[in-house]
This record gives sequence, structure tokens and C-alpha cells, in this order.
Amino acid sequence: MKQSRYSPGARLHRQTSGAVRFSRTFTMVFAGHPARAAVSAFVLVISVFTALLALPWASADRHPMSLVDAAVTATSAVTVTGLTSQDPEFYSFAGQVVILAAIQTGGLGIVTLGAWLTLVVSRRLSLRTRLLSTESLGVSKLGEVPALLLTVFVVTLSIEALLTLVMLPVFVESLGIGEGIFHAVFYSVSAFSNAGFVLDTTSLTHPLIMTTINVGVFAGALGFPVVYMLYRMVFHKARMNLHTRLTLEMTAILLFGGAVVLAIFEWNNPATLGPMGTVDKLHNAIFASGMTRSGGFNTYEVTAQTDQTLLVTNVLMFIGGGSGSTAGGIKVTTLAVLLLAIVTEIRGDEHIRVHRRELPVSIIRVAVAVLMAGAVVVLTAVVLLTWVTGADLETTLFEVLSAFGTVGLSTGLTASAPDAGKWILIAVMFIGRVGTITFATGLTIRQQKTLYRFPTERPIIG
Amino acid sequence: MKQSRYSPGARLHRQTSGAVRFSRTFTMVFAGHPARAAVSAFVLVISVFTALLALPWASADRHPMSLVDAAVTATSAVTVTGLTSQDPEFYSFAGQVVILAAIQTGGLGIVTLGAWLTLVVSRRLSLRTRLLSTESLGVSKLGEVPALLLTVFVVTLSIEALLTLVMLPVFVESLGIGEGIFHAVFYSVSAFSNAGFVLDTTSLTHPLIMTTINVGVFAGALGFPVVYMLYRMVFHKARMNLHTRLTLEMTAILLFGGAVVLAIFEWNNPATLGPMGTVDKLHNAIFASGMTRSGGFNTYEVTAQTDQTLLVTNVLMFIGGGSGSTAGGIKVTTLAVLLLAIVTEIRGDEHIRVHRRELPVSIIRVAVAVLMAGAVVVLTAVVLLTWVTGADLETTLFEVLSAFGTVGLSTGLTASAPDAGKWILIAVMFIGRVGTITFATGLTIRQQKTLYRFPTERPIIG
Ligand SMILES: [K+]
Ligand SMILES: [K+]
Repeated sequence: MKQSRYSPGARLHRQTSGAVRFSRTFTMVFAGHPARAAVSAFVLVISVFTALLALPWASADRHPMSLVDAAVTATSAVTVTGLTSQDPEFYSFAGQVVILAAIQTGGLGIVTLGAWLTLVVSRRLSLRTRLLSTESLGVSKLGEVPALLLTVFVVTLSIEALLTLVMLPVFVESLGIGEGIFHAVFYSVSAFSNAGFVLDTTSLTHPLIMTTINVGVFAGALGFPVVYMLYRMVFHKARMNLHTRLTLEMTAILLFGGAVVLAIFEWNNPATLGPMGTVDKLHNAIFASGMTRSGGFNTYEVTAQTDQTLLVTNVLMFIGGGSGSTAGGIKVTTLAVLLLAIVTEIRGDEHIRVHRRELPVSIIRVAVAVLMAGAVVVLTAVVLLTWVTGADLETTLFEVLSAFGTVGLSTGLTASAPDAGKWILIAVMFIGRVGTITFATGLTIRQQKTLYRFPTERPIIG
Repeated sequence: MKQSRYSPGARLHRQTSGAVRFSRTFTMVFAGHPARAAVSAFVLVISVFTALLALPWASADRHPMSLVDAAVTATSAVTVTGLTSQDPEFYSFAGQVVILAAIQTGGLGIVTLGAWLTLVVSRRLSLRTRLLSTESLGVSKLGEVPALLLTVFVVTLSIEALLTLVMLPVFVESLGIGEGIFHAVFYSVSAFSNAGFVLDTTSLTHPLIMTTINVGVFAGALGFPVVYMLYRMVFHKARMNLHTRLTLEMTAILLFGGAVVLAIFEWNNPATLGPMGTVDKLHNAIFASGMTRSGGFNTYEVTAQTDQTLLVTNVLMFIGGGSGSTAGGIKVTTLAVLLLAIVTEIRGDEHIRVHRRELPVSIIRVAVAVLMAGAVVVLTAVVLLTWVTGADLETTLFEVLSAFGTVGLSTGLTASAPDAGKWILIAVMFIGRVGTITFATGLTIRQQKTLYRFPTERPIIG
């Protein structure tokens, strides 16, 4: 059947085919090596931004950063971590624009890469697993993935535009039109990408800015499968899937549970919540709790917090945000699966059930693998970093977890560490960002049937 | 058929029936509440020993300990931890005998309780699971459990007698006959029970004593199912089961792997291995690594070690020893299952396979539950203990992990903590000892079939 050249349906069809064809070409280039593709893409992007930031014009005083400092900033921006070895005032306007570009590239890059990897690996799944996989992405068939990506781009830019507009009046009033607009755009992108980069150390005191950034970080940390699901619920009356429900529930529990614990331990701390009024105390506690999800902005000195808060923050940073988001950590749904496993054991059930759904048996193994891999990376890095820096366990553990969770809260160790320490933190940010995606995606796919079985034997454990 | 009154077979049969009848009565008293039985038994035993140690004659200077200090020592001895708030020289000879009795009661009590719980819960298992369960205990049917217990008692006392004989000449030579015999007996029981209690701070320098204690701790930390299996392999030509193989392998890997890492980080530390010759360095590194399994004896100051060693020691203490042993922690087979889960994921296999056996699907959930429960206990205790003592994270984490793993290596915090801190450590020792047994045993049994199923849905994780 010949289609009219000017029908909108035909144009949409052509566009989709184009996207699918591009995706196929891209897939063929890295066929069979999705992990290698992800790692290569990130290394390339980070190298480019490192080179740009190592040039003199990136610094306010035209005195260039050392290569390792440029690499820290570039890696930190592309992996949306927010740890830097320089004060925010160090960078020139050009440097700030490069950082903004790196954040947006990294943020959207992660989302794109995540969707693409899912697409590639889904091709190799059995029909049943493929259905489960597309279902959890919020699409009913694989052909929808390009549309999903388009939606993610549009939604991301729309939300960032909205956040910019909300903050614009405050910034314009205090900084003038030009700088005000740049600040609003920068903080909007930095918040929704969960990057945690700031332009100066004083912007975050205004309550409206704080709230907007908190909302931006919250939304960004949910992850694109959740954002796409919510979009489809609003515009296409879709029913909420299990992934979205678990992500929203765990994120809310961690946000408010974390805020309560933080408020308890900081309520009378003169260096943090102590001097504030009750409302401000609660507001700042929720802000600080939300930032571990992994926004990484802070309204008071990290090191001024009590040991108890630091420890709870460590745990929250290790958990991180939603799967397929710009947040790091082992992810809230991984925690949900691990917790559900315990509940299942205590209830003595045969299957993990939640919200009238059963989880596939294999998912608990993936969750364990993600948890253990995270623990191994963090512990190895802490041992090496204490060795190189001579800093104590508390400081080192916090900084490594902040890097692994791509959170960006800092005890100052990233700035004070010798070069070897900075390279360790660069590696941890990279693994925390790229490793978990490829690791988890790689793990989920390779379900192979074995043709032989061994007798079952149960060792005693616990 | 009437049996001859004097045939040895009949006598054995009567004895076995008696044991089974006692076990049945015992079972009926706590029917349906094995966890409650375990907790009650331990609370009762600890209370009795606390009362004995709080009396004036337990102290060398007849000045009685405070109740909390007596409770620390009693809990520490019964849970075979070895953390105390007093110097070893504080106790009178009577006090030392009470501690010895507490250690032996606690050590054999755990073994007995473990076997009995397995027996009780096995009754409620499906035939298939029961077969798996008895198989892993190393017995072919439940009726053999009393015989197993008898074997464990005989083997325990035989090994302790052997260790005593080996150390006797050294102690008698330096301390005279009376005190020499007591020292040999005390250190033998303290080592094989993994208690880590010492009579003075100088005994452990002799290489023969060090080696003997290391061997005793190693054997004790394997756990009674392994000891029974080895006994049956030697005397009944039985084939090694999966539990024994995994326990031996993981224990060996942790012992030598830990020794290598410790040697690296302490080689030039002037306060630990630094001044020793190469052979002594290696010997002491293996000793220190083995003691985390959870013997808890030490040849140099814990706090003099490098931060890296402390961190590695923390991990090793959290792992602990063999299931059904006097060692604490999450247990080496739990770690083995978690690691095998990762290997399975990376290989993309459908089933966890090792040594030509498959692990049942449910075991990974039990392992996760044990791991997560342990993490929650440790983190909660650390938050509370830093709050109460004001000590730093490094010190607190080490002491809590030492208590949870019933290891007994100490940074001195148990002695310097205020009463509230001591009660927290008492609770952690108790949970580390009783909690994990009942938790793991309780979890393994309650496999119930559900009559309805929900649709499967896979959230995205990692
Ligand atoms: K961040
Ligand atoms: K011990």
C-alpha cells in the first residue's frame, strides 16, 4: 500500500524507522559488547571535558588546573557526582559553562545509555523475560524504546525549564539579569541531574531555592523508567507498574525516615540545625536527607555534623537513588528486593510477593551481586585511600561512599588528597556511575538454560 | 523379640531411647517456641554467672565488681566473646574458675542448642527438606542426632585434653605444677571454645602456645557439623559433604588471604610486626588472621595496628566462623553462598552450582536475611555507642564488630565505656551469639506452600 507523502502518520513512521535504524547501526558497532560500549563512551566524554577544563581559560585567574584536578572535575561532572578539588569560585564563566555542559551530557548520557543497553540486551532475552523487561521499562514492546527516549529528553528539558523559571526571580533579583539567568539554569540542571555542583557557597540559603533544588533532585533521582511511567499515567491513563511503586515507596521512606533520624541527631548541634527555628530545622533536615539520594547539595558543613548523622548519611549514600536515574548507589529497588527477601523469610513464604505481584526467583541473586560488588568496591577504595592519605576511617569512608553513590557531599578529602588519592576517587566515581549500570544490566540478561543438573545439597548457613 | 538384658546392643538401644525421650520432653516444654527456648536458656545461664562474678570472692582484692561489669564478663564468657572491662589480673582464682565454667557451659551449650534446634525444627520439615537438613548435619536420619551430640561432647573434651597436654610442659616449667595445669586447661578450653579469655597478658609470646591456641581456635571455629563429619570420615569412611567442603575452603581462604593482607600492612609497623624476624612476622600474621575467625587472642595491641589492618580485621570479624560453631559473625558458608551467587550471575547460570552440587533456590534468601540482619544490628549498635561514648567511628565499629562476631579483640572501649555503653555491648554479644543461631535456624524451617500465585513482575534493580 502506497502511503501519502504528506500524511502525518507516514512522517511519524519514517522518523521512528530512522531512529530504529540509527539504533541498529549503533548496536552493530558494539554488537555483543554493551559493557565495552558504555565504558568507552564515558571514558571518551570524560577525556574531552578533562582537556577543556585543563586549559587556562577555564580558571578565573587564567592559571590552569593540574591534569588530575581537571580530571576530578570532569569525571565529577560527567558522572554527576559533584566532588571537586577546587572552590566553586575557582572557575571562570567559561569553565562554569563547560561544567554545565558536562553535567547535562553526563545526565542525559546515562539515561540514554541505560535505555539503549536495555534495548540491546533485551534483544537477546527469551520472549518471557523480554516481556518482563519491557514491562518494567514502562513500554509494551521494544519498538517503543525510541519513543521512550524522545519522551525522556522532552520531559527532562521541560522539568529543567520549569525549575529554572521558579528560581529565576530570586536569582535575577540578587544577581541581575545575565548572571541571574545563568544561575537559574545551572542550578536547575545541576539539581535535576543530581550533580550537586554549585556556583558559589551562599546561594542555597534562600528557602525557595532550597525547596526547588530538593524537588529537582527528588524527581531526577527517581529514574527515567519511573518518569516515563508517571508521564504515561498522566497522559495515557496507564496503570502504575511495580517498579514505579517500589521506587516511590522506598524513596519516600528513605527521605522522611532519614530526615527524622537526622533531625534527632542534629537538633541541638550549634554548627548545623541548632540555631534555626523549628520550621527551618525540619526543612533543612528533609533537605539534607533528600540530598543523600544523590543530589549532594549541602546547607551546612558536612564535617560539622555529629558522628551519628555521618554514619546514617553513609548508609543513605550507599543506597543511592532509583534505577536508570542519574543517582548512584546500589539503588532503592535493590534495597527493596533485599528487604522483601527478609520479610519473605520471616513469614516463611515460598515466593517473594509484594503488591499482589511475585518477584522472579533470579532477582534476589542479582540484588545480592549488586550489593556485594558495591561493598567490595567501597572497602577496597577505603583501604587504599586511608593508606595514601593517612586520613581516618570516618573521613575516608564518607568520601568514598559519596563518590560511589555519586553524591558529592565532601569532608574536604577530595581537595586535600595527594594525586594518588584523587585518582582513586576518580576511579570510584567512574565505577559507581558506569559500573553499576553495566554490571546490573549485564547481569540481568544472561539467563542461560543448562542442559544438565546436579543433585541438590544444602549447606548450613547463618 | 525379647532382647537379652546384657547384650551391649540392647544397652545402647536403651540409652538412645532415653536420650530421645528426654529430647521429646524438652521439646514439648518449648513446643513451637525454639527461639524462646534458646533465648531463655542463655538469659538464665548468663544471670547465674553474673551473680557469681558480682560476689566479692571473684575479685583478687575481694572488692566486688559492679553489676554491669559482672554482666559484661558473664555475657562475654557464656557467649565466648572475650571482651571484658577488667584486666585479666583483676580476677581471683575462684573468679577464673567461674569464667572457665562459663566458657565451657557457653561453648558446649551453643553446640547442644544448635543440634537440638535443628532436631526440633527438622520435625516440621517436609521429607525432602528434612533429608537435606540431616544430610548437612552429617547424619542420615534424625534418630542419629543424640549419637551426634554424644560424639560432639566426647570429641570436644578429647581435643581440649589434647591441647592441654601439648601446652602443659611449657606452663608447668614457667609456673609450677598447680598453676601450670590450670593455665593449660584454661587456655585449651578458651581456645577450642573460641572464647579468647586470657589469665594474664604475657602467656601468648611462647611460639608453641601460640601455635597450639591457633590450632584450637581453627578447629573450634569449624563448627560441630564439620567436626562430626570429619570424625565420621576418619572412623566410618564417610564421604565429605558439601557443608564441610565449603567451610574448610572458605576458612582456609580467609585464614591465608587475611594473613597476606595483614602482613602487607603491618610488615614495617614498629608497634606490631616491625621488630620481628621474617618467620615470626609470618607466624604472627597467620595468628592474627586466624584470631578474627573468632578466637580473639592477640599478641600485640589492637590499636597499634594500621587503619588498613583494622578495616580488614573488621570485615573478617563480621564474617566470623563456621555454622554451628562457637564462632560468631554471619558465618563462612553464608559468605560462600553470597559469593557463589555473584559467580552464578556473572556466568549467567540458572542454578548455583558448586562441587557438582546445586544449592536450593531458597538458600540465597536465607543468606541475604542473615547478612542484612547482621548489618542492621551492627549499624544500630554503632550509632548508639558513638552517641553514648563519644568515641570515634573507627574505635566504635571495631568494638561492635568484635562483640557481634564474638571475637573479643578490643580497642579498650568495653573497659572505658560508661554503663549504658557496656549494656549496649552486652546486647550485641547476646544477639551476635543467640540471635544468629535462632534467626538462621528459624528461617530455614518455615517453608510453607502457598495455594495461590500472583503474576510475576520484575522491577529494575542495580
Ligand atoms: K551528586
Ligand atoms: K572470642
